[in-house]
Amino acid sequence: MSITTSDRLLFEELDARDQLANFRQQFELPERQIYLNGNSLGPPPRDVWPTMRRVLSEWRDDLNVSWFRHGWLDLPRLTGDLIGELVGAAPGQVVIGDSTSVNLYKLLCGAHALRPDRDIVLTHRENFPSDLYVAEGVARTLGKRVVLVDSDDLGDAIDDFVAVVMASHVDYRTSAVLPLRDVTATAHRHGALVLWDLSHSAGVLSPDLDANNVDLAVGCGYKYLSGGPGAPAYMYLARRLIENFDQPVTGWLGHRDPFAFDEVFAPDQSVGRLQTGCPPILSVAALHAALRVVGAAPVDQVRAKSLALTQQFVELAEQELAGTGIKLIGPRCAEHRGSHISLRHPAAKRIVVELAARGVIVEYRAPDLLRCGLAPLYVRFVDVWDAIQVLVTVAEELALKEVNTP
Amino acid sequence: MSITTSDRLLFEELDARDQLANFRQQFELPERQIYLNGNSLGPPPRDVWPTMRRVLSEWRDDLNVSWFRHGWLDLPRLTGDLIGELVGAAPGQVVIGDSTSVNLYKLLCGAHALRPDRDIVLTHRENFPSDLYVAEGVARTLGKRVVLVDSDDLGDAIDDFVAVVMASHVDYRTSAVLPLRDVTATAHRHGALVLWDLSHSAGVLSPDLDANNVDLAVGCGYKYLSGGPGAPAYMYLARRLIENFDQPVTGWLGHRDPFAFDEVFAPDQSVGRLQTGCPPILSVAALHAALRVVGAAPVDQVRAKSLALTQQFVELAEQELAGTGIKLIGPRCAEHRGSHISLRHPAAKRIVVELAARGVIVEYRAPDLLRCGLAPLYVRFVDVWDAIQVLVTVAEELALKEVNTP
Repeated sequence: MSITTSDRLLFEELDARDQLANFRQQFELPERQIYLNGNSLGPPPRDVWPTMRRVLSEWRDDLNVSWFRHGWLDLPRLTGDLIGELVGAAPGQVVIGDSTSVNLYKLLCGAHALRPDRDIVLTHRENFPSDLYVAEGVARTLGKRVVLVDSDDLGDAIDDFVAVVMASHVDYRTSAVLPLRDVTATAHRHGALVLWDLSHSAGVLSPDLDANNVDLAVGCGYKYLSGGPGAPAYMYLARRLIENFDQPVTGWLGHRDPFAFDEVFAPDQSVGRLQTGCPPILSVAALHAALRVVGAAPVDQVRAKSLALTQQFVELAEQELAGTGIKLIGPRCAEHRGSHISLRHPAAKRIVVELAARGVIVEYRAPDLLRCGLAPLYVRFVDVWDAIQVLVTVAEELALKEVNTP
Repeated sequence: MSITTSDRLLFEELDARDQLANFRQQFELPERQIYLNGNSLGPPPRDVWPTMRRVLSEWRDDLNVSWFRHGWLDLPRLTGDLIGELVGAAPGQVVIGDSTSVNLYKLLCGAHALRPDRDIVLTHRENFPSDLYVAEGVARTLGKRVVLVDSDDLGDAIDDFVAVVMASHVDYRTSAVLPLRDVTATAHRHGALVLWDLSHSAGVLSPDLDANNVDLAVGCGYKYLSGGPGAPAYMYLARRLIENFDQPVTGWLGHRDPFAFDEVFAPDQSVGRLQTGCPPILSVAALHAALRVVGAAPVDQVRAKSLALTQQFVELAEQELAGTGIKLIGPRCAEHRGSHISLRHPAAKRIVVELAARGVIVEYRAPDLLRCGLAPLYVRFVDVWDAIQVLVTVAEELALKEVNTP
C-alpha cells in the first residue's frame, strides 16, 4: 500500500483552507462517526432544538392566534423563498407543502392542464422510482401515458406530443448531473413543459431555475437541506405560469381568502395557490431553522467544495481500492457529478454494515451500490481520507478481490 | 340578574365528581385563560416536550437508521391504530398521511375507481368548505360532478347514480351531528360508498366506524386530538375494501417493498397502501404523543362529559343571555350535538375580541358566529360558568340588546 501519514496532512491542509469550515460546528453530528449519508438524511443543525422549544411555546401560550402572531401561516412561503435562494429562484415562486410525491402529483396534473392536447409524460428510467410511481398515478388518473427512456436519450426523445418532461437533476444512484439547461431548452422548442426533481441537487448544486427558464420543480427537505426526517417538500412554479396554473388537490390554504369560508374555490394569486391543507408546523419550523443555516453558505463556495470533495474521493478511491473489485460508477468528470459518489460491489450490503461498525456511515442501495454523500457543510477533507482508509481495511478483512480479471 | 355565588358551587361540585378531571393536568394550558377553542387547535399535552427532545436525539444520534431502530417507518400506522380506538376502528384500517384535504382527495379518487359507472359525489352544502373544494378538484380531474344538498336532505338525495356520499360527522358551525348510521345504510342500499370527515368528532364522539359499516373516513389531528398545529391527518379504509383499493397519488411509502426501488408500483397489502411520501416525523411524533394522552380516556366517559358540558352551557346561556340578542344555534337536543356550541350575533367579531381581552378564548367564524369548544379532557364545568359570566359582562358593556323584538 502506498498510504503514508504524510498524505493525510494534505487533507488536513485542505480543511485548514476551507472557507466553509465553520459551518460544521452548526450541525449536531453523531460522535466518533464519519457521516457520509447527508444525501439521504441531513443531520440536525444545532438551532433546531431551540426552534422547536420556541414553536412549542407559541403553541402553548398563543394557541391558534399563532397562525398570525407568530407567522405560521406565512411559514410555507417564507421557507420556500429561502429554498429559492439555493436553487436560483426569485422570491414568490417556491412554497412548502406535503411530500415530494404529493407535490409532484399536483404539478404534473397542473402541467397537463396547460397542455390539454398532449398526452405524454416523458421521463428517464433512472429517475427516482417513486417519481415514476407518481407519474404512473397521474397518467392513470388523467388518461395520459408515461414514456420511459434512458437518461442519455432524454433530450432526443422530446417531440411535439410530449406535455411534460419530468427528470431528476442529479441521478440518485450514479450522481450524474442531467443537462438541465439543454433538456429544458429542447422541451421548450417542442412546446413541452419541464419539471425537475431537485431532491439530490438542492443545497449542493444550484439548478439556476430562473436563469435556465425552468417551468416546474419539486424537491425534498431532508437531504442536503437538513430539515429533519420526512421534512415537508417544496414546489417551484415559474412566475410566468402562476396565473393560469390549476392543480386538482385544491384545499383551503390555496384559496384566495381562506378565512372567508366560501363555498366555491378561488385560487390565491400567488404561488400559494399550490398549497392544499394545513402545513405540519413543527416540521416546517425545523426545516425553516435548518435553511437559515444551510442558506447562509454562498452557493458557489458550496459547489466548489463539493467538487473538490468528490474529486479527492474519486482519486483516492481509484488509487486505494485497485484490486478490491469495488468500482466507482458515474461520471468521471467532476463537473458532471452531484455531491455523492457511488461504489459498486456484489458484497455492497456487507461492506456497508462493516463500515458502519467502524463508524463510517454510507448507504446501501440494492442490489450492489454503496452511496457516499459528501455534504460540503459538514464533511471534511480528512473525513474523505479516513473513510477510504476504513474502506480499504474492510476490503482487506473481507478478502475482497477483483473477479473476472485476466 | 339571577346569578348568585352559590350557583358556581354547583359547577364546582360537578368538577369534583368528574371522573376525567385528572386529564386536565396532562395538558399545558395558557395561564389565566379559559380556553374554549380546542375544537380549532388543541393545547399541547405535557408529554410533547420530552417526545420532541427524544425524536431530535434519535435524529442526531442514529440519523436514518432511526426509520427502523426507532420505529419511524411504523409510526404512521401505529398512530393510525391509536386513532382507530377513538373512532371504533379495529387495528390495521387507519393510517396517518399528509393533510385532511390530500387524504380526502386520495380516498375520493379511490372510491370513484370502485364505482366507475357512477359519476356523482353527493355532499351537503354545510360541509367544511375545504372539503367541497377537494370534491370539486376530484370531479374536475375525473370528469365527475359534485351535487350539493342541504344536510337534512342528504339521506333522501342518495340514488343509484351516486358513487360516493361525502359528509362531515359534526357540522363545524352548528355542531349538529349528522345521522352517520342512517346515511351510511342508505348509501349502501343504493350501492354507493360513504366517506365521513371526522375532524369535528374524533376525540369527543365516536362514529363507531366498524359497527356502522362505514367505508372511508378522514380527519385532522390538531383539534380534539391535540396533535399540534397542522398535525398530519388520517385516513380510514374499511378492511373489506383494502385489497382492491387504488388511489392515484402513489408514492414509495405505499409500495409493497419500498426499499426494493422497483421501477413499477405495487401497492402494499395493508392500509399502508394509502401512504404516499415520507411522513413529517417531528409532527407525526407529536401527534402520537398526544394520542397516548387523549386515547387513555374511555370514549364513553368522554362523550358523557361532553354532553354534560354542552348541556350546562346551553342552559346557562339561555338563562343569562336572554335579551342580549346572542342566540344559540344548532340542535336543542344534547344527543344531536358535538362538543362545541355556536352562538350568533351581528357583533360576533367584536364580542370575540372582548372575550379574549378578558381571558375567554372562543373562535369567530364569519359573518356572525362565536364558536365555543368544550373539550372534555381539559374544560371544567366552572369554566362554563365563568365563561358565561364574562360573556354577560361583555354583552352589558357593549350594550347589546335584542333587536326586532315586539
